[in-house]
This record gives sequence, C-alpha cells and structure tokens, in this order.
Amino acid sequence: MASIKVALLGFGTVGEGIYRILNERKEEIKREMGCTIDIVSILVRDKEKERLATPGTKITDDIQEILLNPDIDLIFEAIVGEEPAYTFLSDAIEKGFHIITANKTMFAKHGPALLKHAEFRGVYVGYEATTAGGIPIIRTVTNLLPTDRVLRIRGILNGTSNFILTKMREEGIPFKAALHEAQTLGYAEADPTDDISGKDAFRKLMILSALAFGTQPNWQDVSVVGIDKITIEDVADASKAKLRYRHVADILIDEKGTLHGSVGPVLIGTHHSLYGVEGVDNAIIVETDYLGALTLVGPGAGMYPTASAMVGDFLQMIGKREKVLVNS
Amino acid sequence: MASIKVALLGFGTVGEGIYRILNERKEEIKREMGCTIDIVSILVRDKEKERLATPGTKITDDIQEILLNPDIDLIFEAIVGEEPAYTFLSDAIEKGFHIITANKTMFAKHGPALLKHAEFRGVYVGYEATTAGGIPIIRTVTNLLPTDRVLRIRGILNGTSNFILTKMREEGIPFKAALHEAQTLGYAEADPTDDISGKDAFRKLMILSALAFGTQPNWQDVSVVGIDKITIEDVADASKAKLRYRHVADILIDEKGTLHGSVGPVLIGTHHSLYGVEGVDNAIIVETDYLGALTLVGPGAGMYPTASAMVGDFLQMIGKREKVLVNS
Repeated sequence: MASIKVALLGFGTVGEGIYRILNERKEEIKREMGCTIDIVSILVRDKEKERLATPGTKITDDIQEILLNPDIDLIFEAIVGEEPAYTFLSDAIEKGFHIITANKTMFAKHGPALLKHAEFRGVYVGYEATTAGGIPIIRTVTNLLPTDRVLRIRGILNGTSNFILTKMREEGIPFKAALHEAQTLGYAEADPTDDISGKDAFRKLMILSALAFGTQPNWQDVSVVGIDKITIEDVADASKAKLRYRHVADILIDEKGTLHGSVGPVLIGTHHSLYGVEGVDNAIIVETDYLGALTLVGPGAGMYPTASAMVGDFLQMIGKREKVLVNS
Repeated sequence: MASIKVALLGFGTVGEGIYRILNERKEEIKREMGCTIDIVSILVRDKEKERLATPGTKITDDIQEILLNPDIDLIFEAIVGEEPAYTFLSDAIEKGFHIITANKTMFAKHGPALLKHAEFRGVYVGYEATTAGGIPIIRTVTNLLPTDRVLRIRGILNGTSNFILTKMREEGIPFKAALHEAQTLGYAEADPTDDISGKDAFRKLMILSALAFGTQPNWQDVSVVGIDKITIEDVADASKAKLRYRHVADILIDEKGTLHGSVGPVLIGTHHSLYGVEGVDNAIIVETDYLGALTLVGPGAGMYPTASAMVGDFLQMIGKREKVLVNS
C-alpha cells in the first residue's frame, strides 16, 4: 500500500489539529483512499517548548531538513504571518512539493503568484482553510466555475468581530468588554488589531476575489472599516429598529467587469440571510447567474474545523474523495 | 479536441435548462475543460409537442435509439417518476453509459442499487440535482467524508412547503390560498400531494441518508407528516411567540449506530439557523464531529439551479473542475 509522507510547518492550534485528524482517521483514510499517511517532520520555532507527544515524527527548527528530504511529498503550512511562510512555500513549490496552507495573510498577497508557480511546477496548492475556516467556500466556488458566473460574494468573514457584535447586542456590554471576553475565550488574538480593524476580513475577501473573478481589485481602492467605532448606543438603536450590525466583506463585479470591494459594518434586517448568523460563525453568500444566491454558514475558525478543511484538501488531492466517481 | 456526446432524457424545465447551459457556456467549457459537448439526442414522450428549437439534435421518442447509439458517452436524465426512468438508467449503466440524474423519486428508492451497478460497470453516477436543487449538498457531504463523521443532517428540503408556510405567516392567508398561489407561480405541481404531504422531503432525506450513513432507515419507521394540517390560527399563535413553522426533514445516527429519521412541521425560534429561510429556498444543516454544524441555503428548484447542478456533476466527471488541482 502506498505511503504518503508529509511535513507540518507550525504546530500551534491548527498544526496540532491536522496531526490529530490524520492519526484519528488513519483507518478510514487507509480504507477509503488506499494509502497510509506518515507525518515525517514537524517544523517548530522552539524545539524545547512543551507540546503534544508525536512519537515517530521528527521535530525540527530547520526548514532545510524538510525541504531537502526527498521522501516528503507534501507540506501542510500552518504558520501565522507573511514571512517566513511565503519563502518556505515558494521554495517548497520550486522543489516539487505539494502544499496546503491555512495562512490567509500570506495567501491574500502571494496566493496568485504561488498558484502560478505551482501550475508551472505541476504541483498542487490547497487553500480551503485560508478563508472561513471549516466552511468549504473555496471548493464550492471552484466547483461552480465554469458553469456559473459569479456576480457577487459577501459575508461575515471574521468570527471575532461577529462574536463581539453578538455579545454587545445580547448582553448590552460595550465594545471593550466584549473584546475582552473574546480574548478570554481564545477567539481573539493577544493583538486583535487585524480582527477588529477589518483587515483580516479584507484578506479573505481578496482570496475569494482572486478565485471567483480571476483577479483582485487594487487594495487601496477597497474601503476597510472595522467594528471598533460601534458604540453600545449604536447597537441599542439598531435593536429598537429590529436591525443588527454585521461586519460584512463584499466584492462584486459590475457590467463593465470592474470589481467593487468593501469591508465594514452593515445594518441588516430580519429578512436578510446574515441576520441569524451569531457568535463566532462565518457566513458567505455567493451570487451567480444560474444558481441565484447560495449561502454557507459554519465555523470560521477552530482547531478541528480548520484542520479538517486542510485534510480535506489533502484527500481531494489524492483524488479519490468522490466515492461516487468511478472513473471510466 | 475531444468531443463528448450526450443525450437528454426528458425535455421539460430541467432538460431545457441543461440544453441552454451547455449551449450558453460552450466557449467556457471548451476553454476550461479542453473538450466540446454535443447534445446528440433528446428523448421526449410526444415528438409533436411544440418546444424550443434544437438544431443538430435528434428528437426521439424511442429510448433504444439512444441506448443503441455507440457514439453517446453520457445520459442526463430529467424525467419525473420512478418508471420508466429506473429501467432506462439501469439499461444505460449496463451498456456502459455514464449517467446524471435529477430524479429524486427514482433515486431515493433505486439510488443504492444504481450506484452499486455503476461501480461494477465502471461508470459515473451524478445525482447532485436530486436533492435541494442548486445547493451542492451531495458534493459537500461527499467531500466531508471520510475526514468527518456525519452525525445528523436536517433541513428544509421542499421549497413548495416552505413557500406556503411563509405566505401563511406573512400574509395571514389560509393553507389553501397559499397553495393556490404556489401553483399559480409554478412552484407546486398540478398534483401537489407529494410536496404538502412531506413525501418529497422524505425522499430527499433518504438520498442524504444513503450518502452520509451508507444506508437508509426502514422507510416505514420514519414518521412523515405534511403541512396540510397547519391552520392560519396555528401560524398566528406561533408568530405571537416569535416562532415560525418550518417543515423539517431530519436524520441522525445515535451512539449505537441506529438511524432516526423524521419529517414534519417544527416550531423554530429566532436563534435557529432555519428561522430566516423563507419562500422557495431550501436549507440543510450538516453536523459532523470535526466541523460542527455547516448550513447551506439556496434555491431548491428551478430550471437553471437544477440544470446547473447537473452540468456541475458532468464537469466534475470530466475531472478538470478543480482548476487549482494540478495533478502530479
């Protein structure tokens, strides 16, 4: 039976999730895919840090140990931030590795170049986990093309912001208290700037734009507003009018083919499909010419949802995911 | 350039939709898939009936003209009802045709046998359009397996029922008037029994059960209740309590591996993700162990959404749908 050898870059929440799923689902994968998966190496920054025991897997702090290992077929990247992730993945593609990434900051900016490079080198790039965590939005949009023409994509792409807005409304607490609660619960980073400023949602929107429209708008043309200026009084006024604040990232193509993107708080009425999306959930509405509107709602983050999306990419790559598909 | 030759069985709303999409998207398909698609034959019941002109395509009322044509690779089936559809598709699989169907009545009962037969004969069976029209629920669940274990699937699987319940609540009109409006708008069949009795939703639930759990419960063990007993007073009482009637089909697996299915009206509160699903839309909540809950909302019927799902199956089969996937 074929054995596929993989490396993980990063062993934080998502990296650990991948490790757990690949181990917990070993038997199912063997049965369904006809192969076993070995996690050969894990790249970490600090080898001495206490972490989950990974018997049989080499823990290293040297990327070259992975890139120079001819046994490894594929790299899961779950590092935070643009660098060194981009350099690592760029080198990996050049050396012929398949890659699967959850790194939205890196992919929003360098995704188009990585995909082009990967096509040239004949390797696979999976990036389902970069956008909206466990919601299979990349796969759904990919599958809609080329049958359908995407006209607009919008939604709640940052779970932390949505959690804060939900708390402010439900408990009548101010922004700062809701943010503090999000941090206590582990939903927001120690530095939550990217979440509450709209930057994180903007990046995911750019990833979706590149996929759906084949291009991104000029970044400086997209208005990006966060939720940090919304007061407890604003939220109360909205509630009185049966409206809810949602932080919405929105990209559409007009009849001339020009893209219009925006990210910011929007007041939503009871009939809107984003009205009921609460807490850390993400939601995305895809509008196409044939299908009309398709809405997907689900977990936008978390160890298992994000890691499940990455393992999903991997199994898709192995190519036997579609059990119903018996190739002729 | 390869040319793929297809036949359509049935040329009603959905059949015409397939014809239109394959023609309207000819260039995109050629560019993306590297092949052209020829609609060689269309099977109809009455050759004399007035219909959309289809130059270059043979209109026939004899299935054997299609089944005995060695040029044809694939059959799109868009007939209504169990027979003769099942016999046609069974024969087609035996003869080595790939098949794509939108026929829920037939597939709920005979789907498992057709899939087994197709696996044996090495042909493809696409059935995305049998369940929830344009919502890619079959593909989404297929892709989640085997990473995730599905625990429960439930949702609004009949757009006509949901339209009627929405109208009763919004306009305060009785069941019969709302049904009449659904019929006038073309949402309900001339004989709407299957829609309002819950039978249609039940069938789709059985298709989802076979996919997600590998089996169906005994049909007689599933309680199936329609919406025809809901009065205008019931709906008004619910509204006063901030609740909404939704017709929900539900299947879950318990810890012992036993399936529990039910179909019927449920009262839903404002925090439920089915609360905001109005009109003819369908919605499905998939719960898995890793992902948590994923909700998909979209058009449950209609010429273009349903036909788009079938053409999507087709392009998936051709196997180059995933533009990002560059095979090693």
